Amino acid sequence: VRELELDAAAVRRMVGDVLDRLGPWLDGLQTSRMTTPTGGHRAAAALRRDWPEDGVGWGPILPLLDRALATSLDPTSPGYLAYIPGGGLPHAAVADLYADLVNRYTGLWMPAPGFVALEVDVLRWFAAMVGYGEEAGGVLTSGGSLANLAGIVAARHRRFGDRPFHGARIYRSREAHHSVDKAAKIAGFPSSSLVDAPTDERFRVRVDALRAQIRADLDAGLEPLAVVGNAGSTAVGAVDDLAALADVCAEHGLWLHVDAAYGGFFGLTERGRAALAGWDRADSIALDPHKGLFLPYGTGCVLAKRRADLRDAHAVHATYLPSSDADPLAWDFADLGAELSRPNRGLAVWLPLVMHGFGAFREALDEKLDLARVAADAVRALPHVRLVTEPVLSLFAFRAEPPGLDPESIERLNRRWIAAVDQKRRVFLSGAVIELGFVLRVCVLSFRTHRDRVDALVEDLRSALDEALAKEGS
Amino acid sequence: VRELELDAAAVRRMVGDVLDRLGPWLDGLQTSRMTTPTGGHRAAAALRRDWPEDGVGWGPILPLLDRALATSLDPTSPGYLAYIPGGGLPHAAVADLYADLVNRYTGLWMPAPGFVALEVDVLRWFAAMVGYGEEAGGVLTSGGSLANLAGIVAARHRRFGDRPFHGARIYRSREAHHSVDKAAKIAGFPSSSLVDAPTDERFRVRVDALRAQIRADLDAGLEPLAVVGNAGSTAVGAVDDLAALADVCAEHGLWLHVDAAYGGFFGLTERGRAALAGWDRADSIALDPHKGLFLPYGTGCVLAKRRADLRDAHAVHATYLPSSDADPLAWDFADLGAELSRPNRGLAVWLPLVMHGFGAFREALDEKLDLARVAADAVRALPHVRLVTEPVLSLFAFRAEPPGLDPESIERLNRRWIAAVDQKRRVFLSGAVIELGFVLRVCVLSFRTHRDRVDALVEDLRSALDEALAKEGS
Repeated sequence: VRELELDAAAVRRMVGDVLDRLGPWLDGLQTSRMTTPTGGHRAAAALRRDWPEDGVGWGPILPLLDRALATSLDPTSPGYLAYIPGGGLPHAAVADLYADLVNRYTGLWMPAPGFVALEVDVLRWFAAMVGYGEEAGGVLTSGGSLANLAGIVAARHRRFGDRPFHGARIYRSREAHHSVDKAAKIAGFPSSSLVDAPTDERFRVRVDALRAQIRADLDAGLEPLAVVGNAGSTAVGAVDDLAALADVCAEHGLWLHVDAAYGGFFGLTERGRAALAGWDRADSIALDPHKGLFLPYGTGCVLAKRRADLRDAHAVHATYLPSSDADPLAWDFADLGAELSRPNRGLAVWLPLVMHGFGAFREALDEKLDLARVAADAVRALPHVRLVTEPVLSLFAFRAEPPGLDPESIERLNRRWIAAVDQKRRVFLSGAVIELGFVLRVCVLSFRTHRDRVDALVEDLRSALDEALAKEGS
Repeated sequence: VRELELDAAAVRRMVGDVLDRLGPWLDGLQTSRMTTPTGGHRAAAALRRDWPEDGVGWGPILPLLDRALATSLDPTSPGYLAYIPGGGLPHAAVADLYADLVNRYTGLWMPAPGFVALEVDVLRWFAAMVGYGEEAGGVLTSGGSLANLAGIVAARHRRFGDRPFHGARIYRSREAHHSVDKAAKIAGFPSSSLVDAPTDERFRVRVDALRAQIRADLDAGLEPLAVVGNAGSTAVGAVDDLAALADVCAEHGLWLHVDAAYGGFFGLTERGRAALAGWDRADSIALDPHKGLFLPYGTGCVLAKRRADLRDAHAVHATYLPSSDADPLAWDFADLGAELSRPNRGLAVWLPLVMHGFGAFREALDEKLDLARVAADAVRALPHVRLVTEPVLSLFAFRAEPPGLDPESIERLNRRWIAAVDQKRRVFLSGAVIELGFVLRVCVLSFRTHRDRVDALVEDLRSALDEALAKEGS
């Protein structure tokens, strides 16, 4: 039998090799150019291999991974201002190294009470940030998609239990993240359950129209179930009036789920708290530590105002599992979400929070709010550029609309503009297609993004716009 | 603004501290006693802390974690024969260190084609192990629960689409893992949809009874949808006759989902392949690399005979996401399962497979099959002990049934027996409550478990039974 074990010396050697390889890259991130997926197809083709009956050993592994690394987008760069940046706080890598090696099972309280306690603490702190009370609960998920799923499933279960729910209505604007629609689909709702709530000029749900829609649906014999509010939409950064949505939900007994995957951790800041006012009245909230707490991909969170709602919606009984005792903080995560087996996600969140304190994260998030405002003001000053959304948090959308161009030319111009910016490889932006058409967007959310990179963004936006205009003119 | 960044030197220092701390533990695993959760409540209480506004730095972190470590069950130990062991191959820790640091996004093909290609390879190899064809597909999940969910959701979607499904019937035995019931609950099925299929003396679904049940349900106007087969049940290790279940499903157009979370990777061995015969006819299969490939918790897998089934059931459209091009291996994982954001799970599976080759894993799994047989034969030879199940794979259940004891005494005796075994801290067993009552069980699935530990198991079972009998007699 060939040995699969690695002793401590082997782990140390492999880890050392990884750090030798990645160290210079890590230390150069503040000044290096962005990588792009150029050549990705070729790299992918070169990496593919047939069934590996025999092993190649450790030697060739890191050189192989170099090819994958060099041909992918780099969300760890301070210039990554696309989609919703994460960043990838290196503390998580240390925490996961530890968690993987000791491999404790945190799906239930009994097998690892200490590690579960750390994760429960994290969830209690998050609940405190929201303003939830003692009855609140939650679970760390792999990301916002499963957090939204847990919220939708809890809403469905509380109202319908085992009853059919084909006439249910879930209201969200077209700004809602598509994982909300996906969650509804997975949870068994027909597509007719998803209702587009009209939005105002700031892409927020129009509360008057929502009220009218709910009343009309009730009159038609349908069953309004839930409203999903945006706490920072992905496309343009819209933040719904959550207090007003909570009022509507209270009037009609609807579940309020707030998708705060992008915006939630701005709740640590004063400005963020103001923008999110009313979210403590939500029945459930999705958060993404891999966004607003700068962690690597793979850590989301669902919170519920009443932990029992999550448990009722997810728990089933198994005879071979130990059940936890009367300790009110002995949470069994397996009963609160979709997963039974799960990695020890709590450690990667707990470690940087305890090491640095929430204060350091609050300062970093305040810096992002400042930087987004600086960037938005500079973009607004560019000729013929319109801010489609102001940065309510750290995300705003915009596009160039020079006079005399038809819609098609404007579309082409803006796509050329963003391509020219990205080609300079100091920042990386992504666009979005909204009703208006194609828009550029900037989302400042990496802990590594500081003023120098925002200045580079503004410079590159300015020169790239000139280039795109020149092409359009020629 | 306080700095959250860690430079390469800081990461190296922290990682070095982790390995200094865990190295002796890791190297001592083959001979050390099992830890147990004794004192866990106290440790948990001591670890809890209020909102950490300011940080404590790195210094106190590892000493704090020591307390959590010392009071939890240790699935990494070669003596861990409880539940379904994982083990925690240290390679995964190295892979996750790398993946976390570089933080590439693998939910879609476009942003990281090289890393996605590695994960697609892993899935293609798994599909080849099953015997699936070119149309197969899949996605790595956080565990078996989400894999079962994806299978159930795909089954529901293919049959019902947007139609109501309240009359659907899902057949599984009481041996099915409770995550199957949980998946059905999350997917919106009422509890009446879950039908107990009767089992035979080996805890396999009785195919004749299943046929009769399906016919009766059809006659009653219900809608038989799916059969869930066990490829190694958690409680007693039952393996259904998958070929026969596939026949039944073919006759009635039902979806066959095989829960191979525990047993699937025995498909690498000759004996396992024989036991799993017919699973290539399943519509979907759940696998758990964190079980049969010895990885740490957090890596499951769903495979589908037709990748399109997963995509149809999960994909929704978003305007701000890039779509992959015509490359048939450019899989967008976000379209195949519940997650959009997700960690780069593929690397931790790919790395040990490429480093050691499937051959080394096959040998390790064959060793587990041998060890389970050795253990079962020794247990069978103990006085008044009955094997409740033979080890079809590497799991078997048993209990002591001395003559002249009433059922209550037998129950007490067996619970005392397992407690006495676990107290010796050379192995750790868990029991299960089945219709018969409480049974002990042994599951050999750690790559670290070798013959010496199985000999210790047998010794401790023998002496602990004497102790338990003495108590019962007194």
